[in-house]
Amino acid sequence: MTPVRDSLELIERVKAGAPVAIARLISRAEAGSVQDREALAMVYKLAGRAHVIGITGVPGSGKSTLVGTLAQKLRTKGHRIGIVAVDPSSPYSGGSILGDRVRMSEMATDPGVYIRSMATRGATGGMAQATLEAVDILDVAGFDTIIIETVGVGQDEVEIVRASHTTIVVSAPGLGDEIQALKAGMLEIADIHVVSKCDRSDANRTLGDLKQMLMTRVAPDGPWTVPVIATSAVSQTGFDELIAAIQSHRALAFGEAGRQRRIDIGGFRLRKAAEMLLLTRLNAHLDDLVPALAPRLAERTAPDPYALAQELIRSLGVGSEATHERNARSKIAR
Amino acid sequence: MTPVRDSLELIERVKAGAPVAIARLISRAEAGSVQDREALAMVYKLAGRAHVIGITGVPGSGKSTLVGTLAQKLRTKGHRIGIVAVDPSSPYSGGSILGDRVRMSEMATDPGVYIRSMATRGATGGMAQATLEAVDILDVAGFDTIIIETVGVGQDEVEIVRASHTTIVVSAPGLGDEIQALKAGMLEIADIHVVSKCDRSDANRTLGDLKQMLMTRVAPDGPWTVPVIATSAVSQTGFDELIAAIQSHRALAFGEAGRQRRIDIGGFRLRKAAEMLLLTRLNAHLDDLVPALAPRLAERTAPDPYALAQELIRSLGVGSEATHERNARSKIAR
Repeated sequence: MTPVRDSLELIERVKAGAPVAIARLISRAEAGSVQDREALAMVYKLAGRAHVIGITGVPGSGKSTLVGTLAQKLRTKGHRIGIVAVDPSSPYSGGSILGDRVRMSEMATDPGVYIRSMATRGATGGMAQATLEAVDILDVAGFDTIIIETVGVGQDEVEIVRASHTTIVVSAPGLGDEIQALKAGMLEIADIHVVSKCDRSDANRTLGDLKQMLMTRVAPDGPWTVPVIATSAVSQTGFDELIAAIQSHRALAFGEAGRQRRIDIGGFRLRKAAEMLLLTRLNAHLDDLVPALAPRLAERTAPDPYALAQELIRSLGVGSEATHERNARSKIAR
Repeated sequence: MTPVRDSLELIERVKAGAPVAIARLISRAEAGSVQDREALAMVYKLAGRAHVIGITGVPGSGKSTLVGTLAQKLRTKGHRIGIVAVDPSSPYSGGSILGDRVRMSEMATDPGVYIRSMATRGATGGMAQATLEAVDILDVAGFDTIIIETVGVGQDEVEIVRASHTTIVVSAPGLGDEIQALKAGMLEIADIHVVSKCDRSDANRTLGDLKQMLMTRVAPDGPWTVPVIATSAVSQTGFDELIAAIQSHRALAFGEAGRQRRIDIGGFRLRKAAEMLLLTRLNAHLDDLVPALAPRLAERTAPDPYALAQELIRSLGVGSEATHERNARSKIAR
């Protein structure tokens, strides 16, 4: 069978929602391999219908529980839900930390829910690309609402969760100061704020603090006012309000008001793909050179790392000739 | 004055420990500007004498308090201490989160201690380079012990703290499950484990859990057995033991046993510098192309981001001709 016919068949199976085909294609995207690139290119053209919701929060904010409850509520309204969990993993052991341990097992047998964890290990730029390709695959497979869930601890994670139509930031009462400080980086990216665990007695203070911070820090822009919604998975409150806010924002995101955001996501994906490809080339090059150069750097007898890197980049031919850049520009931007 | 004479004068002032000169050069390193590169290249050759200690831990582990107490104890033993705090910052507002708020003001007037916060914002690869250049600058300025402190939440932070002679990972009792899970990524990188807040009644469980995890997960290699040390800043206990462990590891790190680690750090610095330079070029190129391409990506009428990025990288001339790579290799590795 030719690769193209192979890809066409794989796509047909993904479109039919076959879990094995979905899993295979997501794995290919995650591995960053050139295999099935044909199919992934087709997926890109076909996708763009699903409502993509990014959900993040500091560790301990109750994101996973919120995602689980929200998914169940959306299911009862007839939605088919894809969940892509970006999962911080050990950079050394390669082990996935959260993994499927915390996944809600009661949904595992429901064909209307598809849950996938993506490990972030060693994926410079590749993680963003693979995650958004996984979203596209689930979109093509007929899931109409896709949740990207990530623990908000690094810039990469925050960027990914922002590459959605609707970004939800989850806070919770009773977390330590240093954890609360991490949250500061996430305040501005929320389209919707959720304070979870609002059955707790100290939740009102968290709600008040958050509302005050938003007043002083976030300028309202355009037709959307960022709501702050109190939820509790224990007492099952706040989810109707949350779903109503999600649907209102969806209408906006798919309309003219959401156009610039969709363009930004397109640009983000191009940047991440280019970064990943370029760093892959660079690393292959460095793998050849580092064994000879590193000992001299360690002894501090070589030029400093910056000067050496400059020479190396220059000899790679990047940007050394203005004509290169001009050629590239005229060829691609036409 | 010529740039070279200017650099020589700056270096002399750094060597004399002049705070203004130190601050200026660190700021140049942080900005990644080409100004004062001459001086930074000289710094690289001169540095390499100080004992560099990387200290990390999950949010709430009491790292900053530990670093403060440790620095004070080392001061009483006559050491001159540099502290470089890698500080997560908001990717959107650019604000530094921890900053100098939590820095110990009592040490601010001691000329034997120099404290500097480095913001991580938007510094792809550049953060590692700037941080290690700051370490070198403090080394040349005569600080014999330099602590790199970072909250252990991302792969970048973990890599930086590993680029030291001695890595200390701080744990604490009483943190939530999701926080504890983040720690899993840091277990393997420790040369010394510290459990802080050991005045707390639940500290023994944390100590026991950590020792058990280490037994099952970390294989002993070479002449060093990773100690687990209980400290309390409140009751001022454990610090003599910690300093003894640091000194033992220092002896090893500067000897033959530490040679491979020093080489790895040299290789890491070359990789990070090359990455930063290449991504800077790529981003300048993308800034020209993205405005025309992103809307087509958003409409999904263009080729997919991966295919477009491939074309873009190819037209940049990187790795497209095998001769380029061969030339680069023979030129640099000689």
